[in-house]
Amino acid sequence: MSYTAAVAGCTGYAGGEVLRLLAGHPEIEIGALTAGSNAGTLLGQHHPNLVPLYDRPVLETTPENLAGHDVVFLALPHGASTELAKQLPDDVLVVDCGADHRLTDEARWQRFYPSPYAGAWPYGLAELPGQRELLANTKRIAVPGCFVATVILGLLPAMTHGLTDGHDITIAAASGTSGAGKALTPRLLGSETQGSVSAYGVGGIHRHTPEILQNLEVLGATDPTISFTPLLAPMSRGILAVITAPVDTSVSAEQITAAYHDAYDAEPFAQVLPAGVWPASQNVLGSNSVCVNATVDPDAGRMVIVSTLDNLVKGTAGSAVQAMNLALGLDETTGLTTIGVAP
Amino acid sequence: MSYTAAVAGCTGYAGGEVLRLLAGHPEIEIGALTAGSNAGTLLGQHHPNLVPLYDRPVLETTPENLAGHDVVFLALPHGASTELAKQLPDDVLVVDCGADHRLTDEARWQRFYPSPYAGAWPYGLAELPGQRELLANTKRIAVPGCFVATVILGLLPAMTHGLTDGHDITIAAASGTSGAGKALTPRLLGSETQGSVSAYGVGGIHRHTPEILQNLEVLGATDPTISFTPLLAPMSRGILAVITAPVDTSVSAEQITAAYHDAYDAEPFAQVLPAGVWPASQNVLGSNSVCVNATVDPDAGRMVIVSTLDNLVKGTAGSAVQAMNLALGLDETTGLTTIGVAP
Amino acid sequence: MSYTAAVAGCTGYAGGEVLRLLAGHPEIEIGALTAGSNAGTLLGQHHPNLVPLYDRPVLETTPENLAGHDVVFLALPHGASTELAKQLPDDVLVVDCGADHRLTDEARWQRFYPSPYAGAWPYGLAELPGQRELLANTKRIAVPGCFVATVILGLLPAMTHGLTDGHDITIAAASGTSGAGKALTPRLLGSETQGSVSAYGVGGIHRHTPEILQNLEVLGATDPTISFTPLLAPMSRGILAVITAPVDTSVSAEQITAAYHDAYDAEPFAQVLPAGVWPASQNVLGSNSVCVNATVDPDAGRMVIVSTLDNLVKGTAGSAVQAMNLALGLDETTGLTTIGVAP
Amino acid sequence: MSYTAAVAGCTGYAGGEVLRLLAGHPEIEIGALTAGSNAGTLLGQHHPNLVPLYDRPVLETTPENLAGHDVVFLALPHGASTELAKQLPDDVLVVDCGADHRLTDEARWQRFYPSPYAGAWPYGLAELPGQRELLANTKRIAVPGCFVATVILGLLPAMTHGLTDGHDITIAAASGTSGAGKALTPRLLGSETQGSVSAYGVGGIHRHTPEILQNLEVLGATDPTISFTPLLAPMSRGILAVITAPVDTSVSAEQITAAYHDAYDAEPFAQVLPAGVWPASQNVLGSNSVCVNATVDPDAGRMVIVSTLDNLVKGTAGSAVQAMNLALGLDETTGLTTIGVAP
Repeated sequence: MSYTAAVAGCTGYAGGEVLRLLAGHPEIEIGALTAGSNAGTLLGQHHPNLVPLYDRPVLETTPENLAGHDVVFLALPHGASTELAKQLPDDVLVVDCGADHRLTDEARWQRFYPSPYAGAWPYGLAELPGQRELLANTKRIAVPGCFVATVILGLLPAMTHGLTDGHDITIAAASGTSGAGKALTPRLLGSETQGSVSAYGVGGIHRHTPEILQNLEVLGATDPTISFTPLLAPMSRGILAVITAPVDTSVSAEQITAAYHDAYDAEPFAQVLPAGVWPASQNVLGSNSVCVNATVDPDAGRMVIVSTLDNLVKGTAGSAVQAMNLALGLDETTGLTTIGVAP
Repeated sequence: MSYTAAVAGCTGYAGGEVLRLLAGHPEIEIGALTAGSNAGTLLGQHHPNLVPLYDRPVLETTPENLAGHDVVFLALPHGASTELAKQLPDDVLVVDCGADHRLTDEARWQRFYPSPYAGAWPYGLAELPGQRELLANTKRIAVPGCFVATVILGLLPAMTHGLTDGHDITIAAASGTSGAGKALTPRLLGSETQGSVSAYGVGGIHRHTPEILQNLEVLGATDPTISFTPLLAPMSRGILAVITAPVDTSVSAEQITAAYHDAYDAEPFAQVLPAGVWPASQNVLGSNSVCVNATVDPDAGRMVIVSTLDNLVKGTAGSAVQAMNLALGLDETTGLTTIGVAP
Repeated sequence: MSYTAAVAGCTGYAGGEVLRLLAGHPEIEIGALTAGSNAGTLLGQHHPNLVPLYDRPVLETTPENLAGHDVVFLALPHGASTELAKQLPDDVLVVDCGADHRLTDEARWQRFYPSPYAGAWPYGLAELPGQRELLANTKRIAVPGCFVATVILGLLPAMTHGLTDGHDITIAAASGTSGAGKALTPRLLGSETQGSVSAYGVGGIHRHTPEILQNLEVLGATDPTISFTPLLAPMSRGILAVITAPVDTSVSAEQITAAYHDAYDAEPFAQVLPAGVWPASQNVLGSNSVCVNATVDPDAGRMVIVSTLDNLVKGTAGSAVQAMNLALGLDETTGLTTIGVAP
Repeated sequence: MSYTAAVAGCTGYAGGEVLRLLAGHPEIEIGALTAGSNAGTLLGQHHPNLVPLYDRPVLETTPENLAGHDVVFLALPHGASTELAKQLPDDVLVVDCGADHRLTDEARWQRFYPSPYAGAWPYGLAELPGQRELLANTKRIAVPGCFVATVILGLLPAMTHGLTDGHDITIAAASGTSGAGKALTPRLLGSETQGSVSAYGVGGIHRHTPEILQNLEVLGATDPTISFTPLLAPMSRGILAVITAPVDTSVSAEQITAAYHDAYDAEPFAQVLPAGVWPASQNVLGSNSVCVNATVDPDAGRMVIVSTLDNLVKGTAGSAVQAMNLALGLDETTGLTTIGVAP
């Protein structure tokens, strides 16, 4: 194994998923594992699924404990990455799974986040045009938000092929509960989530809203507008987004299909389903794939896109590892799979 | 008990739910139970939850077996109600839970259904303006589709208060699996649905699409347009719809809230949640309530409505019983509850 | 309505379920609702399913706030009922859903509970022999534990008909997560419970163990022995118990069936399924029924009993209301149903 | 890649899981995929999660289509493997995931299966004493039943360390629905399984009963007796078994723990949890691990063992691949992981 990696915030779901992937990565040796209030425990108490790492001690999150690794993953609460990252050497690859360094626009940041603006890092979504080159030459990576990855990978072919200009896009996206993390609030209890679908953050107030807008701009939109509504679905993992966008009456389903294949057939982690077959989140569970399909509804004057991925993999830890691979000069797919654990 | 009721198609989910409600209805005595291929079995083999009716025999669905009742509920596959209904006396109250008599426009029917057009019956959604009077004076009732009830009850206050004119509405609605009935297809197996959200009928092809359009017209829309995408969620019951509609920039959240309260505060089965509180499908499980909330997203130029109900109750059997109550001259709420079984 | 009832601990799952049932009870007017740290909120913030009670204020749990009602339900953490109950008048009917007054043996109490022993109240399981008369003449009722109700109602016919003497009984019982209450611990998060079955309290250490033993003694056992293992299942409601007991080689399946029918055919809330049909917890969801079946495994030398009920209804609030009905001289079944909400 | 493998019965859950594992196996090239009535379709229509194999054609299951491979996996309905296997060359490694060749005792076979007895093949459970040597020298392997693997791997340390002699063992085991395959019966519909635990095959009649007894004999029992009750749990994957066995009063929890560590610490796919920590099925999802813990209940005079595995991996396809590895002379762990996909 050629590189060592530490994980700060290892006891949460994002940190645990980074470790699940790194444990199967042939080029990475797992080093220090750190956390805040959980320091002093064993990793297995928090992630009993990580059998080979069960007895690993959880250290305190300090620059000292994270020193001496080639890669440091940050899986910390929003706002906590900035200070820590400043204390890590410039030549260490730092991959932030949090939001601190995602937004390039300070005004947007200030509208949605309480902490001070800390500037943007190269964005860890390899499928964006030109992004692989950026990621190959950076030591700082900001991993996308999970809803953002789902939506932007759903819209990317439509944007790059001129089927939509990013105006008046509507998004309803159902997420598994792990997307909300391990926060101990009544609404995340199994008794509340099992057997129930609910909405939250309605009316354009979810923090992934500005991040979606920013990426639409990256994809060429001018003053994009979106209506984004997140749902909580009774499952642990997975996001499935329904996205609609106005299209010209001349646009056919075949044209849309062609655009999606053109954009994604060479992508290792994007799958376009056959015509008439629609994604189910189960099929990408545990995999780094995004699975999409799209068609047109002529009566509605809209195209409809369905996009699904595993919020903890392609939506967080998988995109993080994919970006790390690029930054380390490894094959982009190392340690990642396109095959979901289904049923 | 003042009336007798028979249920044709008693072994499916809709028929079973009609029976669950009738079994608790103080004015209805349950009479003949009939089915197709399940004739000759006991009701308890299909609905073991209906303890007091466990040993009731399932007869064959024939006009003879259904004769002599004050009310006949039809819970049959689409296309099967028409012929049977013709053979039932005019003075018997017939409540059709299927689609056969929902659409008033023959062209729409022919586009979405293979069977011949059979004409429309009074529509069993009591909350539509003027509908209670219609239902009080009919012997034939067509119960709404479950997605339709969710969406129209979500949009009704916005339509009647002029917040939307029914154009360019987008709908993504997640349904529990019982909405698909007892069809024995792989995609409805527990192994496929548990832990997974999926899309189907994408692109305006779901049969509830024309029925939503028709109701928007009833509510005053001219040439309404909708983009409707149904989802299957990992739960047995419940539908939750996210609905967006363009609004004028002058429309405020307070104005929307006022419209919803104005429309629904006197309705026995519609609940408007407090500002910032969004519906969860669990809270209406087993109840006849529709639970809604709405706000505006000024950046998107759209209002966002979230609407939830139990697909088998307010979405089917509950609306059926509510309409029956009106047709029989009973208190509309008899045998129905607004209280869900949660958590 | 003839009586008023207050609920202390109204914001938890047990308190909410008592309210769900009382809201449909024709003889009870719901009075004061109280809680600890949730005092000052509205009931709907905790139980949005209780639509008619949504705006009811949650008062502080004090004797003053609970004064002036005919019935007071206590749905408090274990150990909190005792002091409160002392301050309620003797002529008020107090129904304790907690454990404080369930155990008749001080040594058993001290082994399993940290708080001081407070003595036993008449036990709120109407189906126990002679219990209805006791409940008809008391102002203090201790509602059974949910696992206990499931197991004892599963074993009752076998005990009263001499098929087992209560020795070497094994029990594995899977519970929905609401049985663990609203405690904010990671293991109860939806992300941990969905899609997963787990064991806990293994090795005879669960607090319902001594309560099962006590009831076996009530049913005639001398020095009963049980191996009881609770499981957490990925659902919000329901308990299903698998119970085995050694039987004589002469005992036939028919004999067992006859015993169960003899014991339960006249019981309003116990259902014996046909031979070869086994209970599913879904079928009693929301109902006050316990659903059982039993047979013999001659090769194993054991009878096998499967028993299911809704942990929040027959396992808690339903048994509480049933016992209240008896204590108030009402028909035992008032406000309760035998019909589950399924599928 | 050194070997080619065909899969007969590739469209069912067991066949699909074999393919999921083989697709990540560095020494296996996937060859012919065959099925019965699904011949002529594409694999992706049945297993959309197997992205790299999506367009693979499903051929008819014939000896000709299966010819020319080093390994043939059979994932066929019970009774179908025998005839097909006879037509495969002796030097081809045949791994049967079905029951046809599991039982060594003809009388037991005839009591539980309708098809003629076809003799036993070396049993594909590598953890059994001496089994690795047997598997290293065979061309025919019978993969264990999923409940059997869960139970026997739970009991193995207790048997080999003399803590139980295999008499009067009780087992209640909850399985995810994929254990029942893709059979299109109402009881396996999502509407029936979600939110519900149910029992089936009660009273010693489940076909895994004789297979458990046989393995207890392999582990040294004389005339073992078990009471085995299977449950269906609301999840797609996973089995968790609660097993009890009488123990001498002298046996301590520490002794039991020591036995389990002694038996399993060198096993690559068996994990013993720390004292007081009990398995959750989620933690082995997708992995080839069995996760166990055990203790004593002195009051009950029984030890209690909890054992969990993924029914499709260690319970079927994973044990199949592990046995294949041994038979091919590969490292036993090739292509398999001990890390589950959780939460």
